[in-house]
Amino acid sequence: MSGQEFREISPSEFFYRHREIVGFTNPARATYTSIREFVENSLDAAEAIGVPPDIHVTLMRDEGFEFEVYRLRVEDNGSGIPGEYIPYAFGRILYGSKHTLKQMRGIFGLGGKMAILYGQITTNRPVHIVSSTGGRDVYEYRLLIDVEKNSPIIVEERIHRNGNPKWRGTVVEVFLEGDYQRSSSKIIEYFKETAMANPYAELSFIDPYGVLHLFRRSTTKLPPASREVKPHPHGVDVETLRRIINSTDCKTLKELLVKSFHRVGETIADRFLKTYSLDPYRDPASLTPGEIVDLAYALKNFEEFLPPDPSCLSPLGEELLLEGVRKELNPEFAVAIQRKPSAYSGYPFIVEVALAYGGGTPQTGRITLYRFANKIPLLYDESSDVSWKVVNQVIDWRHYKIDPTRDPVAVIVHICSTRIPYRTLGKEFIADRPEIEAEITRAVRIVARRLADYLSHKRRVEKAREYFSVYERYLRKIACFSSMLTGMDEPDIDKLLRRVKRWKGMEEAL
Amino acid sequence: MSGQEFREISPSEFFYRHREIVGFTNPARATYTSIREFVENSLDAAEAIGVPPDIHVTLMRDEGFEFEVYRLRVEDNGSGIPGEYIPYAFGRILYGSKHTLKQMRGIFGLGGKMAILYGQITTNRPVHIVSSTGGRDVYEYRLLIDVEKNSPIIVEERIHRNGNPKWRGTVVEVFLEGDYQRSSSKIIEYFKETAMANPYAELSFIDPYGVLHLFRRSTTKLPPASREVKPHPHGVDVETLRRIINSTDCKTLKELLVKSFHRVGETIADRFLKTYSLDPYRDPASLTPGEIVDLAYALKNFEEFLPPDPSCLSPLGEELLLEGVRKELNPEFAVAIQRKPSAYSGYPFIVEVALAYGGGTPQTGRITLYRFANKIPLLYDESSDVSWKVVNQVIDWRHYKIDPTRDPVAVIVHICSTRIPYRTLGKEFIADRPEIEAEITRAVRIVARRLADYLSHKRRVEKAREYFSVYERYLRKIACFSSMLTGMDEPDIDKLLRRVKRWKGMEEAL
Repeated sequence: MSGQEFREISPSEFFYRHREIVGFTNPARATYTSIREFVENSLDAAEAIGVPPDIHVTLMRDEGFEFEVYRLRVEDNGSGIPGEYIPYAFGRILYGSKHTLKQMRGIFGLGGKMAILYGQITTNRPVHIVSSTGGRDVYEYRLLIDVEKNSPIIVEERIHRNGNPKWRGTVVEVFLEGDYQRSSSKIIEYFKETAMANPYAELSFIDPYGVLHLFRRSTTKLPPASREVKPHPHGVDVETLRRIINSTDCKTLKELLVKSFHRVGETIADRFLKTYSLDPYRDPASLTPGEIVDLAYALKNFEEFLPPDPSCLSPLGEELLLEGVRKELNPEFAVAIQRKPSAYSGYPFIVEVALAYGGGTPQTGRITLYRFANKIPLLYDESSDVSWKVVNQVIDWRHYKIDPTRDPVAVIVHICSTRIPYRTLGKEFIADRPEIEAEITRAVRIVARRLADYLSHKRRVEKAREYFSVYERYLRKIACFSSMLTGMDEPDIDKLLRRVKRWKGMEEAL
Repeated sequence: MSGQEFREISPSEFFYRHREIVGFTNPARATYTSIREFVENSLDAAEAIGVPPDIHVTLMRDEGFEFEVYRLRVEDNGSGIPGEYIPYAFGRILYGSKHTLKQMRGIFGLGGKMAILYGQITTNRPVHIVSSTGGRDVYEYRLLIDVEKNSPIIVEERIHRNGNPKWRGTVVEVFLEGDYQRSSSKIIEYFKETAMANPYAELSFIDPYGVLHLFRRSTTKLPPASREVKPHPHGVDVETLRRIINSTDCKTLKELLVKSFHRVGETIADRFLKTYSLDPYRDPASLTPGEIVDLAYALKNFEEFLPPDPSCLSPLGEELLLEGVRKELNPEFAVAIQRKPSAYSGYPFIVEVALAYGGGTPQTGRITLYRFANKIPLLYDESSDVSWKVVNQVIDWRHYKIDPTRDPVAVIVHICSTRIPYRTLGKEFIADRPEIEAEITRAVRIVARRLADYLSHKRRVEKAREYFSVYERYLRKIACFSSMLTGMDEPDIDKLLRRVKRWKGMEEAL
C-alpha cells in the first residue's frame, strides 16, 4: 500500500459519482426523476402549511446547445423558503428541513438537489430560484454547486419587493440534458397517478410540444396533516438512545421514558422498569455505555408498549382514494378500504387499497397495479415491490372468480408511514417487510371479496334480465290471446312485471 | 414554513439513517453483510500488493450481552494500512483510498465502515484494529465513530514493535447484534462462491459452533493486476472535464487531449479537433463555461475514439474460472469462455461465463445461476439481475436440447469493469445495460452450444455402447460356434472390437 493515497470526498462528490442509485441513470430517466423530485418537494411544501397544492410544470427544449437540452420550470404555491436558507437548501447535499420523524414524500430534498447537480454537470448552467414565504420580500438566486466542497456558489442574488396581493411559493428552473421522447409516457403516467393519489392538488404540465396536460383538483379537502412524533421505543437503537440521554433534562429514568418516547405513560413505564429490574429514580446520566446497550435492547423487545399512534400519519382516507380512482379510471365498479394502523420496528404505517373494475380500467392481460407511498406514485421496478408479490403471488384470484388474464381489474395500493422501507434511494420499490405484506394481503382480500360480490350480483341480475325479457315478451302475448279467447279485458301486466323487476334486484341495475 | 428548522447532517448520520440501502436491514442480513464487506476489503488489500490472499474469519457468540451478539474477527495478509491513516480509514465515512478509476471490489470502504457503525450502534463496543504495512511497527487501535461529526473517537492507541519475521496485514474485530441461524446458509454460500471466483485465495471461516470451514487455494497464480486508467473521452461529463482543465499544465487543446485522456493519440486528437472545428493550439484555460459544455458533449459523441483498453481490468481468465468451477462443483462437464472486451459509457468491461453440467452440479428444477462482479459473488435479488434475465428470459434452452427443469446445469457469469453498474449500494444486482446484456447473451449462447455438443456426443456414444455390448456378447459366441463348426482356430476378435470402439469414439468415454 506504499504510495497509496487517502483522501476524503464530499457528499456531493459521492452522489455525483453514484447518481444512478438516486435515479439519474441516463437522459430519459433523469428527465423523469428531475420532474418527479421537484413536484414532490412542491407537494410537501404546500401541505406543510395546509394549502391545496397548485403546481405548474413546464418542460421546454432549449436550442442554445448542440445536444438535447431542456429547460425545466416548476412553480408551486407552497410555504416558500426563507431567503437566508435558499443557497444551502438548494446547493448543499445532506442539508435540509426534512430530518424529522414525520410522514414526508422526500428524503430531505436529496432528489431535488441531485436534479440541480445533474443539470449543472450536463449543461453547466446555474439553477434559478425565486421564492417567498409570503412576506415583504421575494428572493431570487442563481446558484451553482461546488461539488468538491459541497457548497453553493452564488452567481446572482436579488431581493424584490413582494407585490399586492403577496405572492407565496417557490419557482425552480434548471437546464438539463434530457430525452423527452423516451420518457414522455412515464412522465404523463406520473402526473396521472399523482393526480389520483392527490385529488386535492391542481397539476399542470406543458410538454416540449407545447401541449398542456391539466389535472384539475376534484376537491379542496386536504387529508389531515401529518405530525412530527417522538421515537417509539420499539424503533430505538443504541445511537438514538445515547443521543436522547445526552440531550435530556430528565433526572430519572421514569421521567425519561414518559417524556422522550412515543406512547409511554406512567403505568407502562413502571411495568417496563419492573420487568427489567431497573431503578425508576436512577439518573439517566449515570448509565454506563453497557447499560445503555441493554436498555436499548429492552426497549426494543418489551412487548407491552402500545403500538405507535398513527395520528401522526396522513393517509388519504377511503373517500379521497375512491374519488381519485373514479376521476382517473372512470371504472364500472370501484371500492376503497383503509386498514387499521399497524407498525414495523417502531414505525407506524397504514395501508389503503382500492380496486377498480371495468369501465375505463385498462385491460392489460393481468391485474393492473398502481403503487403509492406517502402519496407519491412508484413507477419503476414493479416486480420487486411487496405489492406486486401480494397481487401476483400471494392472492389466488380464481378464489374470487376473477380471471386476471381477461378481466379488467386494477388494484391501487397506498402505504403511508413515517418511514417507508424503500429498498433504494431512488424511491422505486418497497421491501417485503412481513408486517406490511400481511396488511396489504388482508386489504386486497377484502376488496377482491367485494368485487366478487358485485360480480355475482351482476351475473344474477343479468340472468334475471334474460328471463325477464322472455317473460315480458310472452306474458303480453299470453295476456292478449287469453283475453281474445275469454273475451275478457286484457289484464294490466305492467304492475306484475314491475314487481318481478323489483324482486330480482334489477331496478337499480337496469 | 414558519419555525421550520434547517440543518445539515453528516455522511455518517445519513448512512446511519438509511442503513438498509447498504445492506443492513436486520440482524441476519447485517451478519452476512459485515462478513462480506470485511472479506472484500481484505481481498483487495492482498491483491493490491500482488500477494495471494490468506483470509481468516471467526464468528463467535459473545455471552456478555442479554441478546444475540457476535464477535466478528477478520484477519488478512494484505497491504496493511499506514498507522496515521487508521483512525480515518475506519472511522470516517466517505474517506478512503478507493477513489480511482480502477477495478476494485468495494465502493471505497463504505461497506466496511457501515459494518463498524452497525456494530457500534447495536453493541456500543469500539472496533478493534491491528495493522502493519510490514515495517518496524504494528499499530493497534480501538475506535468509536462520532456519528454526528462523522469523525473517529480514539478509545485506545498503541504502537508495538513488529516481530521477526515481520508481519504484514490487518485484523479487524467488531461486536455486532447478529443472527447466525438465519444467515448461516448465505454466509457459507458466500465463502463457497468467493472461493470459486478467487481460487488463488485461502479462506477459512470458524462458525459460532466452532466448526472450521476451510477453502484452500488450488493455485497461487494471481490474475494480472488491475491498473488505474485515465478517463475515456466517452465517459467524461462537464464536471470531470472542468476539473481536468483546472488542474492541467497543458498549454494547448491537443496536448490536453493526448495527455489527459485514455486512448487518445495524436492522429485521433487531430481528427477530433478538425471534426468539431476546434483550434488545436487554443489554451484550455481560455475555454468559456459554455465551450466546456460543448466540448464535453463532443468528447462523449465522437465515434472514432478507440474503445477503452481492457488491460486495466483483471478478469479471471478461462483457466482460473474453470479451475474454480471444477473445484467447487465437481461437474461431469464444464466449459468456460472469456468474451472480448467491450465498453459502456466509456467504462471497459469483460464478461466471462462458465457452464457446469452433471456430477456435483445442483439439480434445482431450473438453471442454477452464480453471479460474480469484480470477483465477488452476488447472492441477493437474483431475479433483478441482468444475468437472470439472460438465462431465464433471453436464452431458449430447448434450442440446445437442454431442459432447465430437469437437467443439472449451472451457469456462472463474471463481469469485471472499472465501474460495475450496480443498481444499489448494497452491491446486489447489476443493471441491464444493453452492452452488458448483449455480451452475456453471446457468452451464454457459446457455452450452451458447447454443452449441446457434449450431450449429443455423449448420447451418440451411449447408443454405440449399447450396440457394442450386443456385438461383444454375440460376436464371441458366433466366433466360438463358427470355429466349432469349421474346426478352424477361433479368430482373435478383441482386435476387431478395439477397432470398433475407437471408431465410435467410445474409448475416451469408457
